[in-house]
Amino acid sequence: MANKFNIQEYWQRFTLIRAETEKICQPLLPEDTVVQPIVDVSPPKWHLAHTSWFFEVFILEKYLQAYQVFNPLYSYLFNSYYNAVGSRVMRDQRGTLSRPPLAEIYQYRSYINQQMQILLHEQSESLPEEIWPLLEIGLQHEQQHQELLVTDIKYILSTNPLLPVYTPATKQAANTQLPEPAFLPVPAGFYTIGYTGAGFSFDNEHQAHQVWLPEFKVQNRLVTNQEYLAFMEAGGYQVFKYWLGEGYDLARQNNWDAPLYWVKQQNEWFRFTLNGLQPINWDAPVVHVSFYEAAAYANWAGHRLLTEFEWEAAAQVYRPEPQAKSFLEAGFYDPQPATNQPANNLHQYLGEVWEWTNSAYLPYPGFETAPGALGEYNGKFMINQMVLRGGSCATPISHIRATYRNFFPADKRWQFSGIRLGTK
Amino acid sequence: MANKFNIQEYWQRFTLIRAETEKICQPLLPEDTVVQPIVDVSPPKWHLAHTSWFFEVFILEKYLQAYQVFNPLYSYLFNSYYNAVGSRVMRDQRGTLSRPPLAEIYQYRSYINQQMQILLHEQSESLPEEIWPLLEIGLQHEQQHQELLVTDIKYILSTNPLLPVYTPATKQAANTQLPEPAFLPVPAGFYTIGYTGAGFSFDNEHQAHQVWLPEFKVQNRLVTNQEYLAFMEAGGYQVFKYWLGEGYDLARQNNWDAPLYWVKQQNEWFRFTLNGLQPINWDAPVVHVSFYEAAAYANWAGHRLLTEFEWEAAAQVYRPEPQAKSFLEAGFYDPQPATNQPANNLHQYLGEVWEWTNSAYLPYPGFETAPGALGEYNGKFMINQMVLRGGSCATPISHIRATYRNFFPADKRWQFSGIRLGTK
Amino acid sequence: MANKFNIQEYWQRFTLIRAETEKICQPLLPEDTVVQPIVDVSPPKWHLAHTSWFFEVFILEKYLQAYQVFNPLYSYLFNSYYNAVGSRVMRDQRGTLSRPPLAEIYQYRSYINQQMQILLHEQSESLPEEIWPLLEIGLQHEQQHQELLVTDIKYILSTNPLLPVYTPATKQAANTQLPEPAFLPVPAGFYTIGYTGAGFSFDNEHQAHQVWLPEFKVQNRLVTNQEYLAFMEAGGYQVFKYWLGEGYDLARQNNWDAPLYWVKQQNEWFRFTLNGLQPINWDAPVVHVSFYEAAAYANWAGHRLLTEFEWEAAAQVYRPEPQAKSFLEAGFYDPQPATNQPANNLHQYLGEVWEWTNSAYLPYPGFETAPGALGEYNGKFMINQMVLRGGSCATPISHIRATYRNFFPADKRWQFSGIRLGTK
Amino acid sequence: MANKFNIQEYWQRFTLIRAETEKICQPLLPEDTVVQPIVDVSPPKWHLAHTSWFFEVFILEKYLQAYQVFNPLYSYLFNSYYNAVGSRVMRDQRGTLSRPPLAEIYQYRSYINQQMQILLHEQSESLPEEIWPLLEIGLQHEQQHQELLVTDIKYILSTNPLLPVYTPATKQAANTQLPEPAFLPVPAGFYTIGYTGAGFSFDNEHQAHQVWLPEFKVQNRLVTNQEYLAFMEAGGYQVFKYWLGEGYDLARQNNWDAPLYWVKQQNEWFRFTLNGLQPINWDAPVVHVSFYEAAAYANWAGHRLLTEFEWEAAAQVYRPEPQAKSFLEAGFYDPQPATNQPANNLHQYLGEVWEWTNSAYLPYPGFETAPGALGEYNGKFMINQMVLRGGSCATPISHIRATYRNFFPADKRWQFSGIRLGTK
Repeated sequence: MANKFNIQEYWQRFTLIRAETEKICQPLLPEDTVVQPIVDVSPPKWHLAHTSWFFEVFILEKYLQAYQVFNPLYSYLFNSYYNAVGSRVMRDQRGTLSRPPLAEIYQYRSYINQQMQILLHEQSESLPEEIWPLLEIGLQHEQQHQELLVTDIKYILSTNPLLPVYTPATKQAANTQLPEPAFLPVPAGFYTIGYTGAGFSFDNEHQAHQVWLPEFKVQNRLVTNQEYLAFMEAGGYQVFKYWLGEGYDLARQNNWDAPLYWVKQQNEWFRFTLNGLQPINWDAPVVHVSFYEAAAYANWAGHRLLTEFEWEAAAQVYRPEPQAKSFLEAGFYDPQPATNQPANNLHQYLGEVWEWTNSAYLPYPGFETAPGALGEYNGKFMINQMVLRGGSCATPISHIRATYRNFFPADKRWQFSGIRLGTK
Repeated sequence: MANKFNIQEYWQRFTLIRAETEKICQPLLPEDTVVQPIVDVSPPKWHLAHTSWFFEVFILEKYLQAYQVFNPLYSYLFNSYYNAVGSRVMRDQRGTLSRPPLAEIYQYRSYINQQMQILLHEQSESLPEEIWPLLEIGLQHEQQHQELLVTDIKYILSTNPLLPVYTPATKQAANTQLPEPAFLPVPAGFYTIGYTGAGFSFDNEHQAHQVWLPEFKVQNRLVTNQEYLAFMEAGGYQVFKYWLGEGYDLARQNNWDAPLYWVKQQNEWFRFTLNGLQPINWDAPVVHVSFYEAAAYANWAGHRLLTEFEWEAAAQVYRPEPQAKSFLEAGFYDPQPATNQPANNLHQYLGEVWEWTNSAYLPYPGFETAPGALGEYNGKFMINQMVLRGGSCATPISHIRATYRNFFPADKRWQFSGIRLGTK
Repeated sequence: MANKFNIQEYWQRFTLIRAETEKICQPLLPEDTVVQPIVDVSPPKWHLAHTSWFFEVFILEKYLQAYQVFNPLYSYLFNSYYNAVGSRVMRDQRGTLSRPPLAEIYQYRSYINQQMQILLHEQSESLPEEIWPLLEIGLQHEQQHQELLVTDIKYILSTNPLLPVYTPATKQAANTQLPEPAFLPVPAGFYTIGYTGAGFSFDNEHQAHQVWLPEFKVQNRLVTNQEYLAFMEAGGYQVFKYWLGEGYDLARQNNWDAPLYWVKQQNEWFRFTLNGLQPINWDAPVVHVSFYEAAAYANWAGHRLLTEFEWEAAAQVYRPEPQAKSFLEAGFYDPQPATNQPANNLHQYLGEVWEWTNSAYLPYPGFETAPGALGEYNGKFMINQMVLRGGSCATPISHIRATYRNFFPADKRWQFSGIRLGTK
Repeated sequence: MANKFNIQEYWQRFTLIRAETEKICQPLLPEDTVVQPIVDVSPPKWHLAHTSWFFEVFILEKYLQAYQVFNPLYSYLFNSYYNAVGSRVMRDQRGTLSRPPLAEIYQYRSYINQQMQILLHEQSESLPEEIWPLLEIGLQHEQQHQELLVTDIKYILSTNPLLPVYTPATKQAANTQLPEPAFLPVPAGFYTIGYTGAGFSFDNEHQAHQVWLPEFKVQNRLVTNQEYLAFMEAGGYQVFKYWLGEGYDLARQNNWDAPLYWVKQQNEWFRFTLNGLQPINWDAPVVHVSFYEAAAYANWAGHRLLTEFEWEAAAQVYRPEPQAKSFLEAGFYDPQPATNQPANNLHQYLGEVWEWTNSAYLPYPGFETAPGALGEYNGKFMINQMVLRGGSCATPISHIRATYRNFFPADKRWQFSGIRLGTK
């Protein structure tokens, strides 16, 4: 087993990732971890527990000898959506559960960590190979919930009239000059889409396959708040022709006239951030827009969104590198302006904001679901969602790759979602 | 002023009542004080703050010189429904507010207590007479919220699959034999309905007026769980003819087949209580039934509910005395069986459960609303609610009197509401 | 039997009333008889059929030998709400039924008429006494639906942007001068409330009983459009203190700022009527107001609504007579101004508009439901409704009496409901 | 102009197509043309008017000199969703409009026909070229509504407990033997997707572009009722793993356990059809299934749905021919069994049922919307819908082609939608 799965290395990652989750929740009060202002958002307490439940149900209960479940009711309380695992608290009722209290959830996390240690250190000889992918997916899953924790905490605090500050704005990104916008060409040709490497990847990145693409161009950086403001000021939210019909109706019903978290006070725009209400950095990428707004903006600008295949092909051509400042660990919790590097690079391609593509979330040719409950991981969501690519300022840097397919319904805005333009 | 309003006595009551509210919340964790599982229920944190807000807005802001508000946003956060006071957090959004945290709410309470002390002790000479009723209503209001705290805490804990225990069941009511049911006659005649005494009363108890009533009879004790079970087992929930149409439809839609909090496990009935899930005490009064169920039971039993006028007249004839065991301070938080006293007394008339009457909540002749925001206290609710009388095991004993008019919509079950029969 | 129930007289009434129903529908196109713009309104086709179904189910099926049902499915299609009779088309789905077509419904009506003739003329010797009240209630029921036909037709046409005219405005009420408003005293005393005569009455008018009333006053005529406009122009719809809380919220949500059917065009008010859109007759009674609006108006005016007991007592004292011009048969389908008679009469007391009282619809002492399905006639509605008295311009003149209790939820406006003031 | 646009030919088509629409409605009673049982379904009266409104607004008002609109309010009444044209009756309120009556709608149609004749015959010299595509799209639009008329009439009649017969089942398809199921290979390669011919096509079929496809196989005929029954009897509706998550939840909520219109009576399955309730022809294609059911069936069968690109490529390889029996004009209004031709043909590829593909409805590369209101024709719907291909038994035969892209949300079942399997 040693040459295939390095337990020491895994345990190190396990320890770090599990600690990172708790670090994200460290500024929260117990009260903050309970509420669920909208159904999309889960209480932080629930995330903390659910990520441990995942290890308990899929690994410890099956592979640790004489494992004692922490609390038999947790299986019901902290199941998210795995139909194969049994019934669960309805998603829209998560915010009604005051118990177990936060302190007990932390005990649960400790217990799971300790039991995982026993499994990996005392029973490592007897672990079957089938457990390897489960161990890996447990960490990947926890990283996904780290991003959700950040977005959900932001939403929870934002609905509070006291506008609480999660963390003071001590960090400052380097002062830079924004690169000029430019459209970089990607030549026509066959591109391999999907994951082909040796590391971890999700089922929905498979099977890798050839896609033929005609030539197109991709913009060198993300659309900025300044640019998006021009769309707003040109009446973009009111002019039907830029919009998908559903999106236009939605914007009318909800009085959308700016991205989520924008607030106008005394005729000046501010944004709610995890540092509290802040003046807008006009060079920073626009974020917290729905697919509808992204598509309307692109239409108004006379361009379009890329498909997910184009997005991935451009990454192969320009090979953008992830930068530490663009991810969760940098602690900005907000996308930063592009730095003034050569204009013919793909700036901000990984991290900062998830980029809406004009691709529906559908299976790749030959896609197959895993057997059992983990088969529900990605496949059952392949309808009525759009693909986003590239990761965000809330994504752990080790979690992203160019083939990673994120997906959300077209109306969602609470994720760090933004806009990159493409064109003919 | 001294001979009209005794400040020392008031301050003593103020101190006790304010402390009682916090005592009710003492067993709660911060997490318990945030959630709002249904719109009827308010988070305990909200009750703790709102009762202080009441003193701040109606008394301190107006009468304490140089009063500094604790936090200007609290006026928005903790207004319940006083349209005259300004806008407010929508009632169904109270459970989304994680901040201010519980600890800060307690600071707010301390601050208000301290400021009230200043007002009453340092500025007592300058207090205008108009403040006297406001001071009194502040305490009455807080007592009303003590009852709501108990009922809301019970509901919050009940929706949790862990079935948390608020307080262990250490208390035991005296072992007694249930009085035989008997109908006690009340003679025809003129009765004075409404408050005529010198103490405090709410606006809705006025004006006292003469009502002529024909002879009727009132049952000597409350309907018991045992008696209600007979209705259930006779198919009472399924037979249309016993029901009001709306009630029957509601029972179908919500699958009502027992009072709220009844749970059947392995063919045996239990009840969720503030002591956790407990076997049913069959001699105890049935409680947590809606008006619809109360009326259907009465029809099935071949009797009827009293009107609120009959209820009050019977109290004048039989003069039941409140008993300590039947109220909040006894700490049962659950109605207790009647004790074996002479059958020709009105047992359990005050305390134990609020008794649904067949009277709609409407103004007495000559009813007038107070000027200003306090005019909203009772009058604006006088539609689509039914009157309940007598107080419950969650009512402070000093808060009840025979003329007290409580009111709830006919479908509500989370209050300690039960049934007393009347008949021709 | 002959000396107790006059078959000839009954048959004459049967023929006239059945014909009147069809006369009301005569101006309608088949398309008009199908739609249901709101759940309160039933398609005219449904009314035409349901009133025949009533005779079929409660009389012909039980008492006519060898009766053949017209169509076995009609029992399901045209049951309104009689739970004891079986299942039925859900009320909110009545507008989805295109079949049976109108022509077939008329065939159904003819068939029922013909079978009733057979029953009454060929089998009259064998009719048991128990059928007499059923025969009577069949006609009373049909008259109730005549009023609903008028109100439902008005609502159906009103929602159509073409503003169709049901009947041209050829009728003109006499030109008159409005009596001066005056409050007429009713002395304190015992009054007999409920029906005590020998004719027909509904179960809810029983048992007649003594009610003691203190002195009060009743206004001599209905509140006019002119007077109501003053309330509107004084901002009455916006000032919370005049309103019940539920009513105020409802008015906000639905943007109520005038009675139903009022339309402002080029800064002038019009009303939709069965004669199409018409200028407002300012002397005519205000109509199509909810209980909430009636109560708010009364508060604003510094007076109040009467209770139903006061209303009935005033009728005993002032003995108002029904006038032909005020009822359905006059064909105005809209309330007319009071005529200039002595000011110390109760003008417009019977007919013109149903007068909201401040009494909830509850049983009289000793109320008993009839056995079987007809027991559902009135009793099961005795919750969350307010009593209206006096009949309207859409009520058949032979259908009204001073003890008649109509009832609707407080938010309903599509009936011909208006306002009479009372005061201390 | 003559060599580019043949007015005589157009007028002939115009006459035929306009008459066909009325022929579809000929069996309907006025009452049938008014109702709207669900929001997806429009009243037939509305379709009859809207197709005329289209010619009025886009052609006559713009190009016919001195054109007098039939009724100025019709523009508001019969606009479907063209935001650029102005406001409109909300879609879910179409079933509340009793007026204009059906007879007037037919007058409207005659008037439009007559005015179009004037335009085309008296003013043909002055017609600008820009009108040619509008004239064509007017007819294509009317053909689309012919299909909707059939599906909406079917739905309307199906909700009626009388189960009305639209037309008796006099037609009989030839008695045939079903071809054995077989998967036909389509080789890998570049395929041109989109319309490249000289005739009419919709904007969404453009731009034609190259797509590279790996090899796949397509089944030679549609999935039959017999085959779908096997899925049902194997518990397919209950087993989560075959389903998309949304679809499974929807099936649970709506108690779906069979295709729309299937009815079980005395343990035997029937289907509601335009010939009334009929025994199931087990060899006929399954129809009225949602995308969710189609995808679940394919999963259960161990295969998959084709993408729309594969579907179109297969058509290029096997060149299936439309057969008269498979389309609207045949008058079956229900899909017929495949006839026993060589197994290596693509049977039922055009007509019978729309085939759900696993492609989301998205723009082709270079897609551009037309300027003005017609730009809303297809583009604004390109979100949250799945593509269907091939036409159905309710599609006019002249309306279909292999590049035609139909689209509906994944939950819709009232269209003639069915299943063809693909595989690796």
